[in-house]
Amino acid sequence: MTSNRLEAFSDGVLAIVITVMVLGLAVPKGTTWTDLVHTSGLGLLTYLLSFVYIGIYWNNHHHLFQLRPEVDGSVLWANLHLLFWLSLYPFTTAWMTQTRVAEVPTVVYGLNLLGAALAYTILQQTISRRPGGERIRAAFGRDRKGLVSPILYLTGIGLTFVVPWLGLVPFVAVAVIWLVPDRRVERYLRTHREDARRTGEDVEEGPTP
Amino acid sequence: MTSNRLEAFSDGVLAIVITVMVLGLAVPKGTTWTDLVHTSGLGLLTYLLSFVYIGIYWNNHHHLFQLRPEVDGSVLWANLHLLFWLSLYPFTTAWMTQTRVAEVPTVVYGLNLLGAALAYTILQQTISRRPGGERIRAAFGRDRKGLVSPILYLTGIGLTFVVPWLGLVPFVAVAVIWLVPDRRVERYLRTHREDARRTGEDVEEGPTP
Amino acid sequence: MTSNRLEAFSDGVLAIVITVMVLGLAVPKGTTWTDLVHTSGLGLLTYLLSFVYIGIYWNNHHHLFQLRPEVDGSVLWANLHLLFWLSLYPFTTAWMTQTRVAEVPTVVYGLNLLGAALAYTILQQTISRRPGGERIRAAFGRDRKGLVSPILYLTGIGLTFVVPWLGLVPFVAVAVIWLVPDRRVERYLRTHREDARRTGEDVEEGPTP
Amino acid sequence: MTSNRLEAFSDGVLAIVITVMVLGLAVPKGTTWTDLVHTSGLGLLTYLLSFVYIGIYWNNHHHLFQLRPEVDGSVLWANLHLLFWLSLYPFTTAWMTQTRVAEVPTVVYGLNLLGAALAYTILQQTISRRPGGERIRAAFGRDRKGLVSPILYLTGIGLTFVVPWLGLVPFVAVAVIWLVPDRRVERYLRTHREDARRTGEDVEEGPTP
Repeated sequence: MTSNRLEAFSDGVLAIVITVMVLGLAVPKGTTWTDLVHTSGLGLLTYLLSFVYIGIYWNNHHHLFQLRPEVDGSVLWANLHLLFWLSLYPFTTAWMTQTRVAEVPTVVYGLNLLGAALAYTILQQTISRRPGGERIRAAFGRDRKGLVSPILYLTGIGLTFVVPWLGLVPFVAVAVIWLVPDRRVERYLRTHREDARRTGEDVEEGPTP
Repeated sequence: MTSNRLEAFSDGVLAIVITVMVLGLAVPKGTTWTDLVHTSGLGLLTYLLSFVYIGIYWNNHHHLFQLRPEVDGSVLWANLHLLFWLSLYPFTTAWMTQTRVAEVPTVVYGLNLLGAALAYTILQQTISRRPGGERIRAAFGRDRKGLVSPILYLTGIGLTFVVPWLGLVPFVAVAVIWLVPDRRVERYLRTHREDARRTGEDVEEGPTP
Repeated sequence: MTSNRLEAFSDGVLAIVITVMVLGLAVPKGTTWTDLVHTSGLGLLTYLLSFVYIGIYWNNHHHLFQLRPEVDGSVLWANLHLLFWLSLYPFTTAWMTQTRVAEVPTVVYGLNLLGAALAYTILQQTISRRPGGERIRAAFGRDRKGLVSPILYLTGIGLTFVVPWLGLVPFVAVAVIWLVPDRRVERYLRTHREDARRTGEDVEEGPTP
Repeated sequence: MTSNRLEAFSDGVLAIVITVMVLGLAVPKGTTWTDLVHTSGLGLLTYLLSFVYIGIYWNNHHHLFQLRPEVDGSVLWANLHLLFWLSLYPFTTAWMTQTRVAEVPTVVYGLNLLGAALAYTILQQTISRRPGGERIRAAFGRDRKGLVSPILYLTGIGLTFVVPWLGLVPFVAVAVIWLVPDRRVERYLRTHREDARRTGEDVEEGPTP
């Protein structure tokens, strides 16, 4: 069972989530720059933030499945679980934007981000427990980035109770950390191809020692 | 005629149906937890239910077409017929939610679920009557799960006339039954590969005895 | 230049057009069967009609590109031209539905159907003029179905000026004519494979005599 | 790392952007031709314009990735950056349409067009700096069309401050310039295949001299 269709379906869902958020942007009634900033300024910023998050998940998902993991029913559901959390982004982004970053809506946005992060971790672990999973474990190592994100999300949720706007700082920080292209999978694939060459093995055909 | 494009198109439709339902979620005007629960609580629950249904259909569809059935015009239309019923989920989910699970809207939701289940059965039978269909029949056997679902849907529709909320119980039961990963196709593929190995045949090249 | 990506993109657009029309369905405010029929009855019928049309175009498009035509810039634009007309279906369907099949909106709906039919003919001819196009011409022959459709659309548009509802009869007739699975491509592929076998040629490798 | 999934995801986003704009078209309340022209006439024209732009980007993207560039994290983000600008088209098109081509909204529309053009240039250059990029540089040459577009967009933005409608003229000119099928990639691929044949090399296997 290959992952082609799982990838295609996930691409579809993420493409729609990323695009549909624009439908939630209020179009200004007036015709001035002030109208634009007032009606849509905050919405454009939160759209940008959520766009970057979805982009990050798409990139990471892309990298993860490049390691060609085995797919079974449990992986399909772990993936759907991730897509569920990501599909809520347009809703939580809209509430936070329309209430101009009020306390509870910002906490809910943070919980949505946290839920997606945990769902991604579950997906990665489900895959790494399957046959061939040692490649995933080797490529991601101790996954410091994956551990730091939930801590930053929790910090953001905590700060929201002090000043809602402050909660966005750690959220943005997570986006920036991940925006830096993640070279771990590329490095793993490169190294192992070289290892394989040295030992005369074919990476595509079997696992490296 | 391979099923690649049929699968890609179905993935597209299901990805949109699953995502577009979030657009139907009312965003709270207020900024409190009470506002969230009151405005969107029920909507989030029915969204979750419909999300799980679409996820189940996607999984089953994925498994069904992994058996590489032959595709002709009648299969294309049986598949479009299924997609038609699934495309109505956002509409019937929205009506049931906005009327807070009133009698008729819940019956209509149940009829929509029933229609999709029947359409899926028709698709499966259309495929199993085509050359190579014995593989589908062998993989699914007597298909007890497929037979139980319509009975539960009808029970749910019946219970709705007593107390609308009660009708949701069998609907949720169907989701739970199917949520348990369906290993029939995986088991079939595994068994037949082993059979093939024992007899020295190649599964990919020809049918097993 | 293969047609894979053209097909994937067209699948995406058609999947969205077919699904997005449901977003245009008005959800009843009331909770009775009368409310459903009154608010959404006509909308469900016109949705079904437009769904069938999109399904037909998807099927025909699928068949056309199974003949593996050569693709260049002019084919890409002929295809985008078809997608443009099809993308207007949600708009013209909504206007006709909301005005309860008034004269002008029904004419506009008919013109939209006609435009898509002509765009499809242009696409088919653009492809059949490219190298390898003789296969398309051989498969579709004199294309009687393709000729009858525009005549029926024009008849429908004419009848709309008498009684708007009457105009829908020829429109439905076109849908029924095409709903019958089109076996021409399948027959062509089967015949030519048999021809090839008799003469010892390989269909995949070169053109048949 | 191949570009298959990057292409599939981009196809998804572009298919949605192109289709979702129709959802923004106001459906006339009345039933006459005047109602149609008055309520939706301008919207249909601006939709057509934005549709053509998205079509052009899809075509160019398609051509660019036919040269099979190597893909890494920086290419993924350069591509997402392009998709971000294109995803704003429904928003800026809607504002310009609803304000009936007022000054600021038309400038904003122009800036959106300009942003997408620059993002495309960045994507093309990111790709051409990767291994194998000499093929992209050879195929596109000095890329006069790519240089003229930003100048025309800036001219359009400037003219908008004189008379808003006038700003649309250079915007339409860009669309027309690109609508003419771009044969550079096709020519490059054809020439190099011929070169390869003459020198007995296989284009698919290695770079041409």
